Amino acid sequence: MVRIAVLGAGRIGKIHAASVAANPKAQLIAVADPFADAAKSVADAHGAEAMTDAMAAIERVDVDAVVIGTPTDTHVGFLMKAIELGKAVLCEKPIDLDMTKSESAAAEVERRGGKVMLAFNRRFDSTFAEMRRAIDAGRIGEVRQVIISSRDPGMPPPAYVKTSGGIFRDMTIHDFDMARWLLGEEPMLVTAVGSRLVDPELVGQYEDYDTVMVVLQTASGRQAHINNCREAVYGYDQRVEVLGASGMLTQDNLRPTTMRVTTADLTDAREPLLNFFLERYAQAYRAEMDAFIDAIEGGKPMPTTVRDGVLALRLAECAVESARTGRAVSV
Amino acid sequence: MVRIAVLGAGRIGKIHAASVAANPKAQLIAVADPFADAAKSVADAHGAEAMTDAMAAIERVDVDAVVIGTPTDTHVGFLMKAIELGKAVLCEKPIDLDMTKSESAAAEVERRGGKVMLAFNRRFDSTFAEMRRAIDAGRIGEVRQVIISSRDPGMPPPAYVKTSGGIFRDMTIHDFDMARWLLGEEPMLVTAVGSRLVDPELVGQYEDYDTVMVVLQTASGRQAHINNCREAVYGYDQRVEVLGASGMLTQDNLRPTTMRVTTADLTDAREPLLNFFLERYAQAYRAEMDAFIDAIEGGKPMPTTVRDGVLALRLAECAVESARTGRAVSV
Amino acid sequence: MVRIAVLGAGRIGKIHAASVAANPKAQLIAVADPFADAAKSVADAHGAEAMTDAMAAIERVDVDAVVIGTPTDTHVGFLMKAIELGKAVLCEKPIDLDMTKSESAAAEVERRGGKVMLAFNRRFDSTFAEMRRAIDAGRIGEVRQVIISSRDPGMPPPAYVKTSGGIFRDMTIHDFDMARWLLGEEPMLVTAVGSRLVDPELVGQYEDYDTVMVVLQTASGRQAHINNCREAVYGYDQRVEVLGASGMLTQDNLRPTTMRVTTADLTDAREPLLNFFLERYAQAYRAEMDAFIDAIEGGKPMPTTVRDGVLALRLAECAVESARTGRAVSV
Amino acid sequence: MVRIAVLGAGRIGKIHAASVAANPKAQLIAVADPFADAAKSVADAHGAEAMTDAMAAIERVDVDAVVIGTPTDTHVGFLMKAIELGKAVLCEKPIDLDMTKSESAAAEVERRGGKVMLAFNRRFDSTFAEMRRAIDAGRIGEVRQVIISSRDPGMPPPAYVKTSGGIFRDMTIHDFDMARWLLGEEPMLVTAVGSRLVDPELVGQYEDYDTVMVVLQTASGRQAHINNCREAVYGYDQRVEVLGASGMLTQDNLRPTTMRVTTADLTDAREPLLNFFLERYAQAYRAEMDAFIDAIEGGKPMPTTVRDGVLALRLAECAVESARTGRAVSV
Repeated sequence: MVRIAVLGAGRIGKIHAASVAANPKAQLIAVADPFADAAKSVADAHGAEAMTDAMAAIERVDVDAVVIGTPTDTHVGFLMKAIELGKAVLCEKPIDLDMTKSESAAAEVERRGGKVMLAFNRRFDSTFAEMRRAIDAGRIGEVRQVIISSRDPGMPPPAYVKTSGGIFRDMTIHDFDMARWLLGEEPMLVTAVGSRLVDPELVGQYEDYDTVMVVLQTASGRQAHINNCREAVYGYDQRVEVLGASGMLTQDNLRPTTMRVTTADLTDAREPLLNFFLERYAQAYRAEMDAFIDAIEGGKPMPTTVRDGVLALRLAECAVESARTGRAVSV
Repeated sequence: MVRIAVLGAGRIGKIHAASVAANPKAQLIAVADPFADAAKSVADAHGAEAMTDAMAAIERVDVDAVVIGTPTDTHVGFLMKAIELGKAVLCEKPIDLDMTKSESAAAEVERRGGKVMLAFNRRFDSTFAEMRRAIDAGRIGEVRQVIISSRDPGMPPPAYVKTSGGIFRDMTIHDFDMARWLLGEEPMLVTAVGSRLVDPELVGQYEDYDTVMVVLQTASGRQAHINNCREAVYGYDQRVEVLGASGMLTQDNLRPTTMRVTTADLTDAREPLLNFFLERYAQAYRAEMDAFIDAIEGGKPMPTTVRDGVLALRLAECAVESARTGRAVSV
Repeated sequence: MVRIAVLGAGRIGKIHAASVAANPKAQLIAVADPFADAAKSVADAHGAEAMTDAMAAIERVDVDAVVIGTPTDTHVGFLMKAIELGKAVLCEKPIDLDMTKSESAAAEVERRGGKVMLAFNRRFDSTFAEMRRAIDAGRIGEVRQVIISSRDPGMPPPAYVKTSGGIFRDMTIHDFDMARWLLGEEPMLVTAVGSRLVDPELVGQYEDYDTVMVVLQTASGRQAHINNCREAVYGYDQRVEVLGASGMLTQDNLRPTTMRVTTADLTDAREPLLNFFLERYAQAYRAEMDAFIDAIEGGKPMPTTVRDGVLALRLAECAVESARTGRAVSV
Repeated sequence: MVRIAVLGAGRIGKIHAASVAANPKAQLIAVADPFADAAKSVADAHGAEAMTDAMAAIERVDVDAVVIGTPTDTHVGFLMKAIELGKAVLCEKPIDLDMTKSESAAAEVERRGGKVMLAFNRRFDSTFAEMRRAIDAGRIGEVRQVIISSRDPGMPPPAYVKTSGGIFRDMTIHDFDMARWLLGEEPMLVTAVGSRLVDPELVGQYEDYDTVMVVLQTASGRQAHINNCREAVYGYDQRVEVLGASGMLTQDNLRPTTMRVTTADLTDAREPLLNFFLERYAQAYRAEMDAFIDAIEGGKPMPTTVRDGVLALRLAECAVESARTGRAVSV
């Protein structure tokens, strides 16, 4: 039985707490959040203890592992404390918005042999995981091109845009990880263009973009394309395509049901997409937690690492520079 | 070079004339229709001779084969004359609305060894033909169930309803042929129900129906279901499904293009279906004529026969009786 | 808080127990099964009490409602006891294989005003429920035809076939309920044909069938077609289509993921279907329990009733007779 | 009646000759090719005159318009002669592989007011044309992103690779035109990467690529992505997606039929794609010719111009440079 404390009782902490509670190999010991009410509400739902001090939660002797779902700028501090005490960690991404700080955290984790998993939830989506397995099973031969379309249903609030670190660091970063994972090789070259088409005034204020396209290339020449837009009126669009030497993999977006409506004007029309990441990746969040707990229980390597987080962040840095300078940037 | 006369310059005669003209192994000699202007218009389009007397066209020494696209009650007369003169015939269905007359025409054709093909155009649709080939190739094993959904875009004009012989004889008859062809065995039992849901007043006047369901069963127990409706607001619906012991075949309706529209309300919506049989089966009409000409040229058996027409008509007769009496009718 | 006892710790009892445990408005008090180990295993998983005597579970004063998931021939006994004690009941279908016994149970429930819901789980499938809502919202106008394709992945074991009451009573019965629900009117006429194509020896032994087709017609002329086969090699096939005066609703089967594979031979190939009812209707079972608990909590009428069970069973009786006699049977 | 001479009796000349012959407003006067047999074969099929001298065909007084389907390096010469004589021209792309020569040809055509249409056949594909119309009709709002996937079924022969001018100039050029057309604005920035994954030895010999990705950006910030691969084992892949402010348009590839095969391993599998451009764009070639003839007959501007050819070629030049230098190139 893995005894777990969840740090952060916000949207994502709530999901992680429920996933821990639902896993028969784990026990939710504590939920920590400076907002006592939030901590209590989540803890009570699963018979866990509510705390306001995350550090104290990490230090508990009855806690084997911690899940870090707190604001980004607190990640590294909690992470360091946890590995210092030899506890396993599932940490929300990004490690930190600062590249240097992220690098040194990763180096420290590796030096200490810390068991840390970075929460790239999309890798645990049943469809994407099946695509990765199909590639590994040789169903499409050597990978040649990966195409990722990833669009949010609508602009985030201004406060979020202000502190997000920019679209490449907060939105494309998921796609950078997906691209690395599906390419099966490290990208060596990044080219990116950014536009302001959805809310030019808001994003222009921070020299940010709301609509971007990226191309990655690995040393052997494999290519990935990513397109992002902060707004897709039809819902949260998450599509991936992989072209290989002997075939291709594609997949569909998810809708609430499979109903299709046919009328005089339109035939076989489907419903709008599941609206956003909590709904779209509900299954992936659970599978991610299960993988974390299995890795601890089985003494196996973590399925994703802090290094993965650093590498995705580095691609984001390169994209920022490429979009600014108009040059392909070597990683 | 097969020299052909087309009898009837209406909607279907026009299509047949164009198919003959487009076939490099055939020559369109004449187009005959009592309406001289209609005959002339179709004949001129393809450099053929216009005639008003169909019998005279059949008798021409420079005519090897005739295509009968005239009103139903003239079919048998022209057919008999043509086989008497040893000419090949492509005859529109039905042979005749009267079962006895159809039977004796078929017997006569068979007795004389006449080369007569009945125009069951749907068998030449590229998709349905591919389904038949896939069954023959063993891709789904022994056939168990056939499901046919066949709906017209809208009610025919009252004059048509009056003389059509009823929905089973004029509409379901195509599906009876399709069912026979895909089942690969002769139906022995017919059950049918009929309703008046689209235009009860009009069809009730002739003790006809506008919405029907039929179930067929062969001696070995294979089953087919047919559903028809005189009105489908979304267009001409033509779907077939075949369940076999080791798989299933399905297919899609055709639209003008493959475009899909996604908006805030609906995703992946496709266009309305091709509206009616001339558009939907344009390819099938050409392939049907090519098959007719190939059979003549190659001295091969006709791909569909007058017997097929009689057997489909008999199923229609049984359906009429079943819908009236509420009994399964043995064929 | 609704306090619930689950009777029966088999496959379906296990699912119901988990659904109760997952519902925040309910508490799982006890799980009863004559097999003590089975009862204990299910009860322990959710912190409930294990019992071997179902009657005793019904009688507990700390139990407000019972879920009957025991063998069919025990349903009526438990049901009567529960309503006698004023307890709400969610009862698995069928009520009983015997029509008279079912009828009198239904009459008794109605006389006493018992709160009984019959477990027609498919009505709670998110897609089918959305189709019903779309019809109610007028999106396709008046219903004209309902087409139901419902096929099991493989033959049930001989022991099951022996006691099932026949394919119409144990398999088609779900589709009869679906047809009634989607037609929005009571069928007045039933025609059915049955074949032995999958395992003629086994089903022939009990004068049963393994492949059937049914047509239903309501008083106003609405029609429904049902096709069933005990074996579909590609998985558990569950499809429904509704044609209305101004449109059509269709839906897709469910697969484990949305991945599509494209190779030199085949394009856009999808995975096999979810294999059987426990997987396919996992969401529906939870929603069914939630609806039961909501009806109790809110003092609202049960969403499905014993009367629904009787009416579906009556259609099955008519189908048995129609398949045997070759006559359309009036309900 | 527009009297037309087709120059070139190769693969594309044959198609153009058939399209002219099929158009009731046009007459095919002559087919010219230095290979007398080829010219004769195509001419005879449509009752036209065979010639070996293309210049003589252009000069005929009974020729109003010419279709240039000869090798690329002869295009400009024939084009200049034709406009000098005031004849309308449908010219295959590219105008010339040399940018300067293309530019000066375009300038000359514009100076003289020549009626010249450049054969960008894809714009006449019924689906792509419908997408353009849907954008114009405002169905998806302002265009934001265009995604074009365009892959050939297999490597062209070495001789073709040697003289093609490189993948950007001979393959991507169609997609550059499509991108310009669908973006509705001129691209101002081009970034491109090229890889050698299919046949590194062959393409490396000419410093060419076989797998490329391009990103275009317009002045207002609209973006287009193009991915190309010289080999897709599943057939000729031609997909386009347009994201707008209020919706999205997508479309499907074409297959020979709409059949779907479902077996124990795979469900709803479709056939391989139509293999290559002659099959895939058969309808588009006819529609292109009809548009050319309509523009002449109606005295309307040509739907595509030599300027379109120059602009697509310029994007190709920029892509070559970008792939070589790793810089975004301004157009």
